[in-house]
Amino acid sequence: MGKILIKGATVITMESHDSVIPDGEIAIEGQRIVSVGPAGSAPEGFAPEKTLDAAEMLALPGFVNCHTHAAMTILRSYADDLPLMRWLKEKIWPLEARLEEDDIYWATMLCCLEMIRSGTTAFADMYFHMDRVAEAVEKAGVRADLSRGMIGVGPEAEAALEYSREFAARWHGRAGGRITVRLGPHAPYTCPPEYLKKVVDLAGELNVGIHIHLAETLSEIEEINKKYGMSPIRLADSVGLFELPVLAAHCVHVDGADMEIMARKKVGVAHNPESNMKLASGVAPVTAMLKAGVTVGLGTDGAASNNNLDMLEEMRSAALLQKVTNMDPLALPSFEALRMATAGGAGALGMDGEIGLLRPGCKADIILMETRRPHLFPRHDWLAHIVYAAQSSDVHTVIVDGRIVMEGRRVLTIDEEEVFHEVQARAERLVGRK
Amino acid sequence: MGKILIKGATVITMESHDSVIPDGEIAIEGQRIVSVGPAGSAPEGFAPEKTLDAAEMLALPGFVNCHTHAAMTILRSYADDLPLMRWLKEKIWPLEARLEEDDIYWATMLCCLEMIRSGTTAFADMYFHMDRVAEAVEKAGVRADLSRGMIGVGPEAEAALEYSREFAARWHGRAGGRITVRLGPHAPYTCPPEYLKKVVDLAGELNVGIHIHLAETLSEIEEINKKYGMSPIRLADSVGLFELPVLAAHCVHVDGADMEIMARKKVGVAHNPESNMKLASGVAPVTAMLKAGVTVGLGTDGAASNNNLDMLEEMRSAALLQKVTNMDPLALPSFEALRMATAGGAGALGMDGEIGLLRPGCKADIILMETRRPHLFPRHDWLAHIVYAAQSSDVHTVIVDGRIVMEGRRVLTIDEEEVFHEVQARAERLVGRK
Repeated sequence: MGKILIKGATVITMESHDSVIPDGEIAIEGQRIVSVGPAGSAPEGFAPEKTLDAAEMLALPGFVNCHTHAAMTILRSYADDLPLMRWLKEKIWPLEARLEEDDIYWATMLCCLEMIRSGTTAFADMYFHMDRVAEAVEKAGVRADLSRGMIGVGPEAEAALEYSREFAARWHGRAGGRITVRLGPHAPYTCPPEYLKKVVDLAGELNVGIHIHLAETLSEIEEINKKYGMSPIRLADSVGLFELPVLAAHCVHVDGADMEIMARKKVGVAHNPESNMKLASGVAPVTAMLKAGVTVGLGTDGAASNNNLDMLEEMRSAALLQKVTNMDPLALPSFEALRMATAGGAGALGMDGEIGLLRPGCKADIILMETRRPHLFPRHDWLAHIVYAAQSSDVHTVIVDGRIVMEGRRVLTIDEEEVFHEVQARAERLVGRK
Repeated sequence: MGKILIKGATVITMESHDSVIPDGEIAIEGQRIVSVGPAGSAPEGFAPEKTLDAAEMLALPGFVNCHTHAAMTILRSYADDLPLMRWLKEKIWPLEARLEEDDIYWATMLCCLEMIRSGTTAFADMYFHMDRVAEAVEKAGVRADLSRGMIGVGPEAEAALEYSREFAARWHGRAGGRITVRLGPHAPYTCPPEYLKKVVDLAGELNVGIHIHLAETLSEIEEINKKYGMSPIRLADSVGLFELPVLAAHCVHVDGADMEIMARKKVGVAHNPESNMKLASGVAPVTAMLKAGVTVGLGTDGAASNNNLDMLEEMRSAALLQKVTNMDPLALPSFEALRMATAGGAGALGMDGEIGLLRPGCKADIILMETRRPHLFPRHDWLAHIVYAAQSSDVHTVIVDGRIVMEGRRVLTIDEEEVFHEVQARAERLVGRK
């Protein structure tokens, strides 16, 4: 990886609402951004090996998808419009039980392909056969935070801890730092307190964070309250989980006391509006969480409950949903929504100041979006255009860790046709059509 | 316009949930569909002048956008995240007052361009300088139902009726039947009962329908209740509005008694979920309206409150919003959402059996969507893919009234660059940057 110069772009740095640089220039050296500014601002003598002409394009930080189950792309549109427990028990779980290691690899490649095409440069994943996920991420050239999902009851509980320990040893900090590892206790209703304490101990020993589903549905709230006399957030806090860096997916049903804990303990929230809507889980109090000082990022959840991994769509849904739920058109304005998808997500992943911003010293995770599109005329307000009007197909070029992984909508790291063929054949085997 | 044969498509007829024809064939003659069926089903001796190879594509009815203000594309992203009355009074109305006739023409062209690109073949519009809107529609080759928005108080009230009468004479049934005209009384809070009665009389005389905003916000409900002691729906009914074909936009705040009237009087509803969310108007009880037998179509509203005209996004938002609002993942399943955007919209416009279906005898308003896209793999369920995963950039070819208006993503009826240039320059003049 050498030196890249992006010229002529309208640069959205995400430092603040009005940090928009017309005819801007970004210099990249190795994995990092060395300068961001107007035309001519690159360091003196900066000799790029590659110059990207980004006239009539927006440059912005790559999107950070804070919560997904990458390989669930293979189950996309397999089962929809069903009650949650029927969906899981009759449809999703039986198929997941038949997933082979190679299925996970190819389905994760499909996820990476879709993410690159839609401008996502980093994601947080929780699934199984995670070595195959890591291999796909390494090959695709994206950034990912990976967790082996652990169920704390049943025969796999101890083995999952052991696998996670080894998985962290094999992959944490690898792929030039693009891959990080967390422990992934699934949720408080599948991981009892004594198991969560083991997870906390192991995470402390390995010096890694934790990725967990918390307070997703009302039935979870009821169950945890009935069993332990407290909310999932307070339960997680009581077992010491929040002494470690925690990425908490969903947090749909949290109250003021929960939010106070989350803010104080610097819990990172992955808000998944479309999954929460589609599964009818509820509406997370994002506006209140942000006001309480909680760090909130944005996620798509898996493709079985979304059904795409499109972060532009996700930030639009987040903003619109907060407005109508609060009956307040000022709720979650465009800058805040875009921040959740970039710098906010970086914060939730504990990567503040590393990704999610266009700033010298940050990792060069950058996307270029075309603007010469009917839905992006006329040019009144770029932030509003991005959040309320843009399409993921406007994404033109994607750089991760200083390396161009898509240029002019051609993905350079993945053989698209091979992925289509593999995933389709494997999906047909899974559902028994082959 | 001659004979066109579409071959090899997966045909989604929208007749019923399972009317999906793999390797299907559609024969078109003049403005109409003559056959829909499996490969080889075209009439014997059918000699197409043009054959479209639609292998790995979906063929479906073009989307029907039941409520928009086309020329408001020129105000896209000009003012967002504001309270409704500040948004209108300080931002939208002052600029609208400065709109020139040519602005309306070019902004409507931009609307038509964006609609064609995203698979919309018909729309219902309410604005002003409607002759220029009609000219743009005629040139763009789309189908539209056009209303001059009328305010029943103030100096323009009578002139608006007179203009509408002449506009109907000039344009109703023109452009080969692609253009129809309605009367467009803006809303019950801007058109008092005595004015609405004049509108009813004129519509009856001209034999045209009515397009009106009804029950959009809580403040409208309060105001109408306070003034007239009844709901906007009951007020509209009491002045005889529903004796004519009515397209009612929004209907966010309607109760059981309102719905009973709407069903009985065959009022067509234009549901605009994203505008209602963005302006924090509320959530229309779509599931309840459908259950009550009300005909519901889908609309985007104007681009100033959306901020795009993307019907795929709109149907997704409609489905997700009904699920989370009703806390029921079964609410508005994929077929119902897609039906609202096609056959449902046709019904709301009084064009049942004319558009919105792929059926012999219907107008040939057809779109082809590419499926060889990462977000559309694997191929478990096409309806779920369309509603929950597809992007408007998947739209490949668009046929309106038997004429190809976009082929291979190249729009044949509009000079895209000219539209961009005109709209941008005019927008800059409007906001005083030029």
